[in-house]
Amino acid sequence: MAIEAKDQKLATDETVPMTKDRELQARARVVIPGGMYGHMNTRTLPANYPQFMRSGKGARVVDVDGREFVDLMCSWGPVILGHRHQGVEQAAAQQAALGDVLNGPSERFVELAEKFVSLVSHADWAMFLKNGTDATTLCCTIARAHTGRRKILVAKGAYHGAAPWCTPVEAGTTIEDRSNLVRYIYNDLASVREALASVEGDVAGVLVSPFRHDAGFDQEFVDVDFARGLRALCDQSGAALILDDVRCGLRLHHGGSWEPIGVEPDLSAWSKAIANGYALAAVLGNNQYRDAASSLFTTGSFWYSSVAMAASLATLEALERENSVAHMVSQGSTLREGIDAQAQRWGLEVRQTGPVQMPYLSFEGDHEWRMASRFSAGALRHGLYLHPRHNWFVSGAMTDADLDMALAATNLAFQELRASLNDEREHQGQ
Amino acid sequence: MAIEAKDQKLATDETVPMTKDRELQARARVVIPGGMYGHMNTRTLPANYPQFMRSGKGARVVDVDGREFVDLMCSWGPVILGHRHQGVEQAAAQQAALGDVLNGPSERFVELAEKFVSLVSHADWAMFLKNGTDATTLCCTIARAHTGRRKILVAKGAYHGAAPWCTPVEAGTTIEDRSNLVRYIYNDLASVREALASVEGDVAGVLVSPFRHDAGFDQEFVDVDFARGLRALCDQSGAALILDDVRCGLRLHHGGSWEPIGVEPDLSAWSKAIANGYALAAVLGNNQYRDAASSLFTTGSFWYSSVAMAASLATLEALERENSVAHMVSQGSTLREGIDAQAQRWGLEVRQTGPVQMPYLSFEGDHEWRMASRFSAGALRHGLYLHPRHNWFVSGAMTDADLDMALAATNLAFQELRASLNDEREHQGQ
Repeated sequence: MAIEAKDQKLATDETVPMTKDRELQARARVVIPGGMYGHMNTRTLPANYPQFMRSGKGARVVDVDGREFVDLMCSWGPVILGHRHQGVEQAAAQQAALGDVLNGPSERFVELAEKFVSLVSHADWAMFLKNGTDATTLCCTIARAHTGRRKILVAKGAYHGAAPWCTPVEAGTTIEDRSNLVRYIYNDLASVREALASVEGDVAGVLVSPFRHDAGFDQEFVDVDFARGLRALCDQSGAALILDDVRCGLRLHHGGSWEPIGVEPDLSAWSKAIANGYALAAVLGNNQYRDAASSLFTTGSFWYSSVAMAASLATLEALERENSVAHMVSQGSTLREGIDAQAQRWGLEVRQTGPVQMPYLSFEGDHEWRMASRFSAGALRHGLYLHPRHNWFVSGAMTDADLDMALAATNLAFQELRASLNDEREHQGQ
Repeated sequence: MAIEAKDQKLATDETVPMTKDRELQARARVVIPGGMYGHMNTRTLPANYPQFMRSGKGARVVDVDGREFVDLMCSWGPVILGHRHQGVEQAAAQQAALGDVLNGPSERFVELAEKFVSLVSHADWAMFLKNGTDATTLCCTIARAHTGRRKILVAKGAYHGAAPWCTPVEAGTTIEDRSNLVRYIYNDLASVREALASVEGDVAGVLVSPFRHDAGFDQEFVDVDFARGLRALCDQSGAALILDDVRCGLRLHHGGSWEPIGVEPDLSAWSKAIANGYALAAVLGNNQYRDAASSLFTTGSFWYSSVAMAASLATLEALERENSVAHMVSQGSTLREGIDAQAQRWGLEVRQTGPVQMPYLSFEGDHEWRMASRFSAGALRHGLYLHPRHNWFVSGAMTDADLDMALAATNLAFQELRASLNDEREHQGQ
């Protein structure tokens, strides 16, 4: 299998035609609306991006045509220890040999709740669900049940899921779905005060991401004074401070993402990486919100399935044992420094923003992500899977060899972008 | 392992103390709001019901204290071929050895969409999600996107999920969450006409279950004229007819649940049994709604995971190969006839309603399900897991031996209920 042969040159789209992918895309167009939906739709990505994947192992993925890539998307976050992590897969298989979805949860349910409560400083209790959107939605519901109020403050442009109340595309939603949202600007405490004042006495909660990671924009770390100010405003107004840790959770810190800055939310939403790819989400809360959480009714057919919980327990243990956050920071830092040096070498002005474990690269003056797209297409051609308009994800499985290959790919991508820009310039000069 | 020894007497709560369950419940109360949440919360069930389960195989489940039960709840529906069905588990393991959640779906995604389109007569396309609630919600969103209208008609008392717009408990929800719902009465076409007229020109869709299966009530088959009338009213008003096949799908018919009566919905919502317990949901639709389905944005981190799709493909194949619907009908009929005879023998007036594969038992004049609860407690004591206020589920794994044990348990439960009623009568007569 190609993925096992670590030293071989990675396949490129020049050497491997995308026959299988094209064939599957044609079949998909018949039986799936638009051929694909959601965040993994490659329609707006460069043409050499595969829509369909075959396999993954560690920090490598293989598409349906057998092209192998170093993986800098990690399935958009869930894969934090690398694909098919042995400890996680073993724990999942052991649980699957007993049972998964039964007439009630298994012992894993209690163990996992205890584990999260011990791991995350603000948490006194836990609830488990399936989607990140389930978790952000439930946080809002608990905040409303506790306060008896309706309004939720959300940052302009922030992504908190894809249910009608929060999806960034309005098609099929109603005004009523969003009528209880009030917008503020990330890192702008005055805008929060203004939003609070506009619906005084009716604010149930303030929803906030650990840092600003809106797709298509440079990332922005949270201002510590902003986070502290939010906490104080929530305390004053009796609203819940809700941290949406779905995307960042466990990549920034082995615990809640705001623990390093010492600001504790009342409720937090988790998903993506908590079970290394197994379908699981969680809501954590403090004792003040416990009664409200038990007063409402929300559930799902697979919310108490044990295999994902066993996988999550193994993930949390492996992250600690393998010191994965530190490893991701180390590899992410080398990646960032390498990319900076390469960009400088090829005379390309780039910005790299946000945490090094969740890199975002943008090009100066890059209207409509044209340069980012060409860079991504080049990186992919040379064996590196990243995204032109969304933050990337480093996993704990990224070895030095993976990193070398990634940087070799980015270097070639920069080189080709430089050459094509020069060609264009010459062409324009004629 | 206890579950393998088919001829042994099933353990009862007299012989096995619920030590482990009590201990887990105590631990759960510390780290989970109310100790448990959602539909699998056993708080309102008889005291001998275990909250925590250990394992399952075929039509048997074992609780954390090692008590084995014939399973008539099937994890509230998902387990349709029996727990740990060999073909499904093998298909899932094969896929897991390649990868699950990757940077895009695998070939399984297209194969599964093709399979559903070939299997379900009204379907021209498919979308996959995680929760039943995801599916009912997406159906409404697609109907709204297609029609540009807001209102959805739902039957009074019907369950369509547990998001804020549809949860049966209002805590934490807002008036706006439900402001676009209009109620009609199941099997009452005049009430549908009235509901349509009340919001004329703004009806996006009519949501309906294949039969009336509201928890705590006798079940009611759909009146064929009602179903045809709904179809005609939707055609006249340009609204989508949406079949909520989440609970029934694949137990009534190897295809859509209304195919035997010849009424085709525009959209249908599926989940529970489609992957024999693996977390998966689906929305199927016809070509009229294809563009609307591709115009909106909804997604989830685990919606494109391949293991659940491989499990679903294997489930659909096994259901066909094993002729499971016919088997469930056969075993369900024997169960129903047996229970009727037993009830008569013990002088207890019962009603059994709905399809035999999804039995619901109620006692005449049984206020607040007191007799049903005592009957359920007795059945559980004698090794049969069923529910006093919710329909049961027969699986394709139920053998004649399982059925014999189930009927032995119901007979003893009726006998004990009879004796205790006689005792009470004597006591009252004194």
